[in-house]
Amino acid sequence: MTRIYDRVALIGLGLIASSLGHAIRRQGLAGHVAGHAKTEATREAALQIGFCQSVHATAAEAVRDADLVVLAVPVGAMGAVAAEIAQHLKPGATVTDVGSVKQAVVDAVAPHLPAGVHFVPGHPLAGTEHSGPHSGFATLFENRWTILTPLPGGDPAATQRLKSFWEAMGAHVDEMDPPHHDLVLAVTSHTPHLIAYTMVGVADHLRRVTESEVIKYSAAGFRDFTRIAASDPTMWRDVFMTNRDAVLDILGRFTEELFVLQRAIRMGDGQQLFDYFTRTRAIRRGIIEAGQDTSAPDFGRTKVEES
Amino acid sequence: MTRIYDRVALIGLGLIASSLGHAIRRQGLAGHVAGHAKTEATREAALQIGFCQSVHATAAEAVRDADLVVLAVPVGAMGAVAAEIAQHLKPGATVTDVGSVKQAVVDAVAPHLPAGVHFVPGHPLAGTEHSGPHSGFATLFENRWTILTPLPGGDPAATQRLKSFWEAMGAHVDEMDPPHHDLVLAVTSHTPHLIAYTMVGVADHLRRVTESEVIKYSAAGFRDFTRIAASDPTMWRDVFMTNRDAVLDILGRFTEELFVLQRAIRMGDGQQLFDYFTRTRAIRRGIIEAGQDTSAPDFGRTKVEES
Repeated sequence: MTRIYDRVALIGLGLIASSLGHAIRRQGLAGHVAGHAKTEATREAALQIGFCQSVHATAAEAVRDADLVVLAVPVGAMGAVAAEIAQHLKPGATVTDVGSVKQAVVDAVAPHLPAGVHFVPGHPLAGTEHSGPHSGFATLFENRWTILTPLPGGDPAATQRLKSFWEAMGAHVDEMDPPHHDLVLAVTSHTPHLIAYTMVGVADHLRRVTESEVIKYSAAGFRDFTRIAASDPTMWRDVFMTNRDAVLDILGRFTEELFVLQRAIRMGDGQQLFDYFTRTRAIRRGIIEAGQDTSAPDFGRTKVEES
Repeated sequence: MTRIYDRVALIGLGLIASSLGHAIRRQGLAGHVAGHAKTEATREAALQIGFCQSVHATAAEAVRDADLVVLAVPVGAMGAVAAEIAQHLKPGATVTDVGSVKQAVVDAVAPHLPAGVHFVPGHPLAGTEHSGPHSGFATLFENRWTILTPLPGGDPAATQRLKSFWEAMGAHVDEMDPPHHDLVLAVTSHTPHLIAYTMVGVADHLRRVTESEVIKYSAAGFRDFTRIAASDPTMWRDVFMTNRDAVLDILGRFTEELFVLQRAIRMGDGQQLFDYFTRTRAIRRGIIEAGQDTSAPDFGRTKVEES
């Protein structure tokens, strides 16, 4: 039990914030966790589940006396929250966030914060297809990366303390600048999600293949697309609205590449397909070696007798 | 222990055939399992692992006296195998296959088979990212669909017996005609795989985002693409070569739809994105209700304390 902050305020009480609350309690990382969510039902759930010790009807009340304030609302709502809490922050407090886009959050939040408050933007690369205060669990961040994007001229001690906080919850922590974060995430997360949403939408529109058949036979590959296409719609809308340039860049590359493979199919060029599929298989092996997935047959979903 | 066939011959000894061998042995579904693979090392592995009781240097030898012959080679190799075994099949035997495309297999195999042999094409919708004789396990088909595409004028009793065989291994069995199978699979499997291969290829080509970063941060969504882009390159080459029309049809629809979303991002139309993402989320719920995936946070990959 290592206390890192005396008082932590969670603004927004969804999947990430509730998981933070559970992890803080389990590791004893804070003396008190205060929470705020817009709806009363969510606030009451947070108290009842126990990942907050106090809940507050406004963000301004929740951040009072907090040493660490975590903005865990959709990216599009960050600016308004920052404006609301700015005058209520404790001098010397650290403000961080968990948004999936970083430059837009910096642009929206930084102008509001008073001098003497440390702003260290962050993004835990962890999540499930579920959202809301009931969806959190203490191990969500274990063995996952959290990226911090500290700003030029910021206080290194505040960044280091926040880093220790994430590491105490089992996360690996990296630092990079906000634009680089947004490009890396456009490749590894944002564009894959848009593509998955699109494929699921195509299946939804097809009238010759009934919805029931698509669902019945989803284990053949489609299932993995629906999983990542089931995340919170508000969060993802905001991601695409705020990381537009990087996503459009990667989407353009994706479309070019898809047309090359489409042409190979149309022309019957099997060798080109075979070579392509052999290359992509190697990337998969890299991910397993990096410990970011399991190689168990069927990914641990079914009982395995031989391996 | 219900014996359904006296002697089963597995032609090709990869993931599907080895899983069949394990499941047959566990359930006592055959008196003897004979196997053939082109390479001696694979044949010896099958004997040593024990999912075949005998192995044979040629497919012609392996099918001798078999009541059920399972063609478990890539779709592009089915015709040559059928030609080789045709004159060695036992009268009254059933020949089936496990290919991911059905009309092309019917076209390649049926002309070779003699009268008195029952051809019942099939496709188990089950697999992992692994291939080869060491990758099989007895529960691979449990709670998964196997689609049979019996031909007009075929023997209903032979189809019924094959259906019982799959059901004894825990599979659900459906019947449909080959072109409908190929369209359904183009939506639920073939096009998603091509898209996943493409996205992994795009990441591979990006020079501004190093491969190491793509791999490190893959848990943010990209990981799920690499998983389905890691399947056997030969198998997938043959799928796209032989189900070309249906895949090109679905790819065309996918591209149209992607352009609509891309335009919404470019124009800043958040409402359109939000509505789209809300619809696709409903499909995901259908899959979980149909028992084709787990809704556990992080899909059972990490230990969960709260749910």
